This record gives sequence, structure tokens and C-alpha cells, in this order.
Amino acid sequence: MKLTILFGGASFEHEISIVSAITLKEKLSEFELNFIFCDQDHKFYLIDPSKMKAKIFSKGEYKKMPQLTIYTGGFTQKSVFSSKEYCGVFLNLIHGGDGEDGSIAALFDFFSIEYIGPRVDASVFSYDKRYTKYLALARGVKTLMHEEMSSSVHERVNILYPVIIKPSRLGSSIGVSIVKEESELDYALDCAFEYDDSVIIESFIEGVKEYNLAGFMANGKINYSIVEEPQKNEFLDFDKKYMDFSRSSQVSKADISDELELKLKQNFEKIYKNLFEGSLIRCDFFVINDEVFLNEINPIPGSMANYLFEDFQTSLKLLSNSLPDNKRVRISYEYIDSISQAKGK
Amino acid sequence: MKLTILFGGASFEHEISIVSAITLKEKLSEFELNFIFCDQDHKFYLIDPSKMKAKIFSKGEYKKMPQLTIYTGGFTQKSVFSSKEYCGVFLNLIHGGDGEDGSIAALFDFFSIEYIGPRVDASVFSYDKRYTKYLALARGVKTLMHEEMSSSVHERVNILYPVIIKPSRLGSSIGVSIVKEESELDYALDCAFEYDDSVIIESFIEGVKEYNLAGFMANGKINYSIVEEPQKNEFLDFDKKYMDFSRSSQVSKADISDELELKLKQNFEKIYKNLFEGSLIRCDFFVINDEVFLNEINPIPGSMANYLFEDFQTSLKLLSNSLPDNKRVRISYEYIDSISQAKGK
Repeated sequence: MKLTILFGGASFEHEISIVSAITLKEKLSEFELNFIFCDQDHKFYLIDPSKMKAKIFSKGEYKKMPQLTIYTGGFTQKSVFSSKEYCGVFLNLIHGGDGEDGSIAALFDFFSIEYIGPRVDASVFSYDKRYTKYLALARGVKTLMHEEMSSSVHERVNILYPVIIKPSRLGSSIGVSIVKEESELDYALDCAFEYDDSVIIESFIEGVKEYNLAGFMANGKINYSIVEEPQKNEFLDFDKKYMDFSRSSQVSKADISDELELKLKQNFEKIYKNLFEGSLIRCDFFVINDEVFLNEINPIPGSMANYLFEDFQTSLKLLSNSLPDNKRVRISYEYIDSISQAKGK
Repeated sequence: MKLTILFGGASFEHEISIVSAITLKEKLSEFELNFIFCDQDHKFYLIDPSKMKAKIFSKGEYKKMPQLTIYTGGFTQKSVFSSKEYCGVFLNLIHGGDGEDGSIAALFDFFSIEYIGPRVDASVFSYDKRYTKYLALARGVKTLMHEEMSSSVHERVNILYPVIIKPSRLGSSIGVSIVKEESELDYALDCAFEYDDSVIIESFIEGVKEYNLAGFMANGKINYSIVEEPQKNEFLDFDKKYMDFSRSSQVSKADISDELELKLKQNFEKIYKNLFEGSLIRCDFFVINDEVFLNEINPIPGSMANYLFEDFQTSLKLLSNSLPDNKRVRISYEYIDSISQAKGK
């Protein structure tokens, strides 16, 4: 089947989106793939699959490739005498800003483009860690205690040290620090505020058990990946996580009880259902005394968490065939007509 | 000052957006106005201000006017030999779908267009009544008890009758019914599910006190409108509300205590701050035994709630000059470069 991968974006995670796209090129051999690159100026380019190499982008060589324009149904390549169209199903593989903040989702919805990826509302709830907390609270999913802080108001932290400081709206560990005592706090806040004017502060629990679970809805039921216990140093820094986005070999299943696996899936479902339809997401959980806490939602996980699925290609085909309808409202003008009639004109 | 009003949209509230735009044309005499109409097919047209009449749209005559394309910074009108550009500050006046669901916000952000209106995240929290509840819960603002129901699962209602049934994602009373006893429930649900596959069910309190308050952030502080006690029949039906969008004469201040006014403003601020910057919103509150409950957030109120402001034109100018920055990330490619170097290529 045909699939067009959109990657890049004006995002701090621009480079890992390139890595993700290159990885998926290898993993999706059964697909007929097109690649569309969104550069930092929000221009779109059609990338020849044989040119899908990191240097093409870092050296600006992509600019020699055909530029595309978004239109109703897909993208179009205009030349003087003709135009060529790229439509069908798209995969939104822009990590971070643009891809995960709802911009690309809204663009695709507005231009009636079918896509795999979180819709606008799902993006908002997963992109901003504050709103992930709102969602979890409302849907009965536990999260760690936290405080919010904005760059304009520095307050005292009331959570016991050590704490972890995270910019509210970034993934991939960018701007994240662990703070062991109050004297280190200001520096860590400055680092985080470089990336966002809002941060969240959470308890940091050394050696906490972490489990990742991915899944997607198809034909009315959620298809789960295996549960993974991620390798970690103190936490994944950006370099490490960057490499992580190029993962392609299947990992082994975490050694956990059936009961815990069921609990993780129940929490995943509470988050996913009636919000994330159309996307394959990865939820990262903490487990403390057998209780499950949501850490974060990755609505466009690195290389689509391919390594967590036994048969990734079949999974992606299943999802492609279960995308939400995007019904457009038709306008009748009956109110304007009835008012005009009442006025006798 | 210059201002371009975007109105219409593929929305059940398309027609009231037209009425709103016509009303604002009269109210904003000190502005140099442009009008851009988004039709139900998501095509954009430049409308001559002298042609801003309801019939132009209902009879399809707008199609004879110049078609525009969105581009970085604004809209452009292309002809064979030249192109004309429309940029500057925009006012998103598309009520309901497209305008209030985050689509237009994302489009404007993506194409670096400066605009008055809710950003993507603010849109998501106000457009869907379920998410308004999440926001209120997280920010310590009371709302009435409610239940959610989806079209696929009909459950028993546990709230005492009478109840009010509302589609989760529509404004302007479309699809809303009051249900006095269980026998009327199925019909009311069917009406609501015609518009949305999710509804919320709330207690309906006859004769409850209602107060509306609008406001916007400029220069770091919220500028409030007067508090209005809206006129009501049992509740505003669509015909009534439709007329309501053409309101332009200033209303009188509700007769309430300073203490209650302060409470309303405090609740408004909890909702607005760190989310609705860039927009002028109207919050509709219930007051029961001196306690304030949020009913709904109108992030693009009908005719911008002009009738609630003593000096609406000055207010809009103030807001235009306090719009949030939309900083775009610059990409350094330092990770790709460092990896390429490590690999020796």
C-alpha cells in the first residue's frame, strides 16, 4: 500500500524526525513510500527515497528537490505546464513542535488529508505536560505530584528534593534536569526556561520502575504492543534518546506479572479512548508499589515504536484502514434565507 | 489601524459568523477593514466591504470575488501578471468548527500570521465541553455535575431530572434540549447525536442566575467588560441566539454586589491566564447560593461581545498590540553533524 511520510518541522526535535524517517524507510519495505520534508521555514519538499540520508538535510541539499504546496486532498508539485499530485494516506512523523502540538493535524484536517497521527485535541493533551496532567486527573489515571512554574514568577518549590524539572512543551529530554538540592534549582530552571516559559516540577524517584506500552485503535479495539522496560542511565539524555529514535530491532518483553500488564493496558485505554483514535501512541508509565502512574504520552513515538510490535508493517496497515472520518459540515443558509424572507427582500 | 476579519467556515455556525462580521463592520468605523470569507469548501475569498450583506453569501455571489491563497504572513491574490498581498493583524471571527476548534489558529500559527483569537490549546479547551470541564477541574473552578455519553453506548442517566443535553462540541444552542423526565430522554439524545457523537448531560436548574463576563489580556493585565445578566427564555434557542450575534448596542450592567463581581473576575482569570492570551473571550457563569460555576467559554463570542465594552474599538486596538509572539525554532543540525563526524563521513 501507498504511504507518504511527512517529517522535519520547525521543532527542537527536527533532527530526530529525520532519523525516525530514515529508520522507517528500512522498516516499511512492503509499503510504496513517498517522503515529504517540512523545513524550518515551513516549506515542503518531495524527497527522493534514495536521497533519504541525514546529510541531505543538514547541508541544505533538499532545497534542490521539488517544492510542494498543500492543497485539498494532498500536496501538489507545480511546474509551468503541469502539476503532479501526492495524495492518499499520510503519516505525520514530525516529532515535537508542528507535528505534536496540533499544527500539522489541523492543517491535514483543514485540507481534508487522511493521516496517521494524533488529531488536534489529542495533540494538545499530550504535547503540553500540564495538560497531560489535566487529562489524567479527569480520566482517573494517576500521575506523580507536580508543580507548575512560569518564567515570570519564580516561586519556592514545595515538593521534596530530588525533583525533576521539565519544560512543559518539549519531549526527548531537551531542557530536562534532575535537581538534588535547592542550591541547584536556579540553574536547572534557567536551562528549562530556555526552551519554554512554563516548566513542571515533579518528584524524582531514583530507580523507579518504568514501563512503556504502545498501541492503536483499529476496528473498534485497541491493539497493544509488548510492554518494554526501557534501559536507562539516570535518565535518557538527548544524545542517548537521539540514538533511540533510530531503533529498529525488536526488543524483548518486560518480565512482569499478567496482573501488572493488565493494569498498564487499562490505564493506556483510559488515556487513548475517545481522543487518540487515528494514532499509534506510546505511553510511558512508572510503577511504584504495584501502582501505575502515567509519566508521559508520546503521540508520535520515535520511529513509531516499531521495535515494540511483533509485526509492525501489518499493524500500520491495520491502522491505516481504521482512520477517523473527517466529515465536513454542509451549509444550508436556511437562517439567512428565512430572515431575508421575513424582511420581504 | 488595519484589521482583516476572517469569517464563515465549514461550521454549523457559518451563518452566525456572517452576521457577526456584518455587525463588526458597523462597530469598527475607526479601523481600515478587509474581509476574507472562508466558504464551506475551505476556499478563501476577498469580500469588498460594500458587499458585506447576508445574501451575497447565501446566493453564492461571493464566488465572483477574488479567490485568495494562504501563504507565509498572510493571504495572496494571484493573477497572471501580479499578486496582491493581505497581511497585518487578522481577527478570527469563525464561530464553531474551524474557527473555535483550533484549525484556523493552527493555520495562522503555521503560516506566521498575527491574529486575535484563541491559540490551538485554548481552542481545544473551550470548543469541547468535556475539556472545559477538565480545565475547570484542574484550575479550581466549579462547574455543574455532568455525565458524558457517546452515541455508541447509551447508558442510564444518574443525574436527577430535569437535565440539559448538549452536543460536546457545538455552541449556539444547536442540538441542545431540556429533558424533564426519562421518557423524553431518547428523543433529546437523538437530536444531540445528530450533531456530535459525544454529548454531555448536566443538571438543569430552572431560574438559575446567569452572568456573562468578557475580557482580554493586554500589557500583562486582564481588561474586563461589564458583567451582564443575559435575558432568557427557558434557554436561548438557535433563532434567538442568531439574532443575538448581531447585537451592537451597549447593554446595562447587572445589578450585583461588588463581592460577586470580584468572584466572577477571579474565576475568569483562573480560566484565562496562561491559555487564552491573544483572544477576547466571554465566560458564561451560573451563580447558585453565592457560589460561582463556569457554564461555558466562548473564545470567539458573537460579534466579539462588543456590546459589553464601554469603548470596544479602543479595547480591540489594545488587544491587537498585545498579541503573543510566535517564535519559530531555528535548526542547527548539530546532532546530525556530530554523528556524521563521529562516523568519519
